[in-house]
Amino acid sequence: MRIEILTVGGEILVGRTLDTNFHFLARSLARLGTPPAWHTTVPDVREMISAALETAMARADCVIMTGGLGGTPDDLTRRVLSQVLGRPLVLREEVLRDVEEVYRRRGRIAPPAAQAMALVPNGAQMIANPVGLAPGLILPTPRGGSIIALPGVPEEMKAQVEQFVLPMLERQLGGSRVTEVVLRTAGVPESVLAESLGQAHPAGCDVAYLPHWGGVDLCLVRSADAPSSSEEFRQWADGIRERLDDAVYATGDESLEQAVGRLLLERGLRLAVAESLTGGGVGAALTRVPGSSAYFLGSIVAYDNDVKVKALGVSRATLLNHGAVSAATAEEMASGVRRFCGSDLAVSTTGIAGPSGGSDEKPVGLVYLGLASAQGLAHVRRLYPGRTREGVVARSIQGVLWLLYRHLRGLKVDDRFPDRGGEAGPGRDPGR
Amino acid sequence: MRIEILTVGGEILVGRTLDTNFHFLARSLARLGTPPAWHTTVPDVREMISAALETAMARADCVIMTGGLGGTPDDLTRRVLSQVLGRPLVLREEVLRDVEEVYRRRGRIAPPAAQAMALVPNGAQMIANPVGLAPGLILPTPRGGSIIALPGVPEEMKAQVEQFVLPMLERQLGGSRVTEVVLRTAGVPESVLAESLGQAHPAGCDVAYLPHWGGVDLCLVRSADAPSSSEEFRQWADGIRERLDDAVYATGDESLEQAVGRLLLERGLRLAVAESLTGGGVGAALTRVPGSSAYFLGSIVAYDNDVKVKALGVSRATLLNHGAVSAATAEEMASGVRRFCGSDLAVSTTGIAGPSGGSDEKPVGLVYLGLASAQGLAHVRRLYPGRTREGVVARSIQGVLWLLYRHLRGLKVDDRFPDRGGEAGPGRDPGR
Repeated sequence: MRIEILTVGGEILVGRTLDTNFHFLARSLARLGTPPAWHTTVPDVREMISAALETAMARADCVIMTGGLGGTPDDLTRRVLSQVLGRPLVLREEVLRDVEEVYRRRGRIAPPAAQAMALVPNGAQMIANPVGLAPGLILPTPRGGSIIALPGVPEEMKAQVEQFVLPMLERQLGGSRVTEVVLRTAGVPESVLAESLGQAHPAGCDVAYLPHWGGVDLCLVRSADAPSSSEEFRQWADGIRERLDDAVYATGDESLEQAVGRLLLERGLRLAVAESLTGGGVGAALTRVPGSSAYFLGSIVAYDNDVKVKALGVSRATLLNHGAVSAATAEEMASGVRRFCGSDLAVSTTGIAGPSGGSDEKPVGLVYLGLASAQGLAHVRRLYPGRTREGVVARSIQGVLWLLYRHLRGLKVDDRFPDRGGEAGPGRDPGR
Repeated sequence: MRIEILTVGGEILVGRTLDTNFHFLARSLARLGTPPAWHTTVPDVREMISAALETAMARADCVIMTGGLGGTPDDLTRRVLSQVLGRPLVLREEVLRDVEEVYRRRGRIAPPAAQAMALVPNGAQMIANPVGLAPGLILPTPRGGSIIALPGVPEEMKAQVEQFVLPMLERQLGGSRVTEVVLRTAGVPESVLAESLGQAHPAGCDVAYLPHWGGVDLCLVRSADAPSSSEEFRQWADGIRERLDDAVYATGDESLEQAVGRLLLERGLRLAVAESLTGGGVGAALTRVPGSSAYFLGSIVAYDNDVKVKALGVSRATLLNHGAVSAATAEEMASGVRRFCGSDLAVSTTGIAGPSGGSDEKPVGLVYLGLASAQGLAHVRRLYPGRTREGVVARSIQGVLWLLYRHLRGLKVDDRFPDRGGEAGPGRDPGR
């Protein structure tokens, strides 16, 4: 099956919005073994959507459209589908009822714009929207293919894809599948990973390196028509996992904060955090995990030095003699928040996020991460590439989660690659 | 000038890599007033690149290709260009010399793959690569248009675009430019904005609605060939701005946290934050702004009730009688952190992020936002759509920044649309 994804959205073409919908769809389809063969983006202009749809219908078996299904005047997808497929727009009573019901529950009357969502091309199969208003649509093409139109709102699109579109495509595709194992690593640079993996792999199997702020994901793939067996693939993947040992924090989709949360729960430990340059980002990452209130007590974001002294008990002498960005301050912050919150464990971040505030001695990107536990205090020093404020902060958040993870696993928390700075901590920039 | 961007890269279509090159190009072209009209992505397959290039040449005046210019066998762009344009590949001595020179400086001999980079379609104009090996190419099309082929490595592509492509396009575009005004709004649902804007606008001018967690951006555009004058456009845009009054927090690229930061700086006020369900996200947002240490003192993330009592001075009686998710707790949190940090202003968040923890009386998505200042205490109650934890938290962060913004502007901080819950506070989901 050859799939084209057609994104409708001027906001993407002017560079205002990253097309995360496409990325999600591509990833999901690749997992099914049918990555999209084309991706086209057009603005919310009627003729341009029509032309792109005609092109897509001519070359692909299945066209997945996102966007333009809302009720405002610039939502054109339903009208374009009607015209291109020669199917008049008809009012679907059941959709109108659903839309009106949602407004009723909010104590409002559905405006005309919302009612427009119930006008769909004749013969469309509807995809329920479990998290919003606009239903998705499935329509057959004259050539025997199909068009799947989904809302542009990411969570609505995702819910419809996961609950309906993927199961449907999986049924249509039958047995032939790609096998994929994802090993999530941190603390080892991509080049070192590549060396330790070597070149040899079973026929039809391959490794992709996917670096991101938190480390490098290794994506081991066996194609559907690989000459090697599933068993050979499995042994190869297991071998890599063993060789990389404790650099692998999770398999599959688990994030570092989820892995940390799992270990804290297992060990019955409670955590507090003291943050400076991360500004609250460590707490925000930890609390992305549902149920994190079982182990996360809180975080004190001491951006100002007076707050470091007052809330965390960092001594004025330490600030004076070593500075706010120092190993001593990081350790006092961790021990201070542990005491203040009465937690079992605590971690801390302090550093220079930039773009200003750096010096020869303490450049932008210099970060100290602290850890306090019943066993005492520890810290690591990191020198991340200081190219962007966002990058330094993101790496610091991932770095301190990694420190915590290693402590919880009983692994050494000192610098594993002390001289490699940013490359050694979390991986290099997410990039193309 | 109608521009198409053609991305060559299988790694993007399988969802491994986000196409940041496209995003950069789109943003840069939009700033020139000529955002791309199409974006197409194809895998590294010869026939598919050819077909996409033919389509692009037929509809666009300028095709910008990225990727496939390296020296490995899967780098097909030069060969496809040669075939589609009927221009044989010729060896460019000066390129070969440059490539060999780079290798010589590294103490190596250029491998055959590197030499392949000097084989380019006859008549190509070369774009020097200041940060890598592969030069870019410019070729005329039979229809009088042009093709610009750039390397896929982001830094190399960016350097060539900034140093060469943008200046060239700017010269070609001359005076005729699109005019764009972006009004960033919060607190008013998209449907209400649409009603208050009405349908009438000057010929050739249009509005796009770009919803995101923090509100709705209105993008007012006048096309280069609009029959209406720049003056008419300006008056229309000013009229909208006035009509929407205080729902507009910024014009252009400024974010809500930047707008808040600007006002705090102007007024010489210092801020502290108390967070519960946002877990540190409010502090993280505020500190994304460089220089925020001038007005942001810190944040106390009191996820646990004991921390609310101990660090923020919330009374046990309040927690017992009203619960942690209540107006009283929100106000005590704000006033507690203001006192603790000695700030002029303080805001707070408490609520139920879900997916569990909700009840009939206090459902997932119920959020109280508090504010403490020299003038006293205030709060707003929000009922955000509780569909995803991520959404409730993101809306709460934007909601409290909006509250702060209104306070700083001297506007009413009570619920402006008290019964509209999430749709009313920050806008609907990030659109796409």
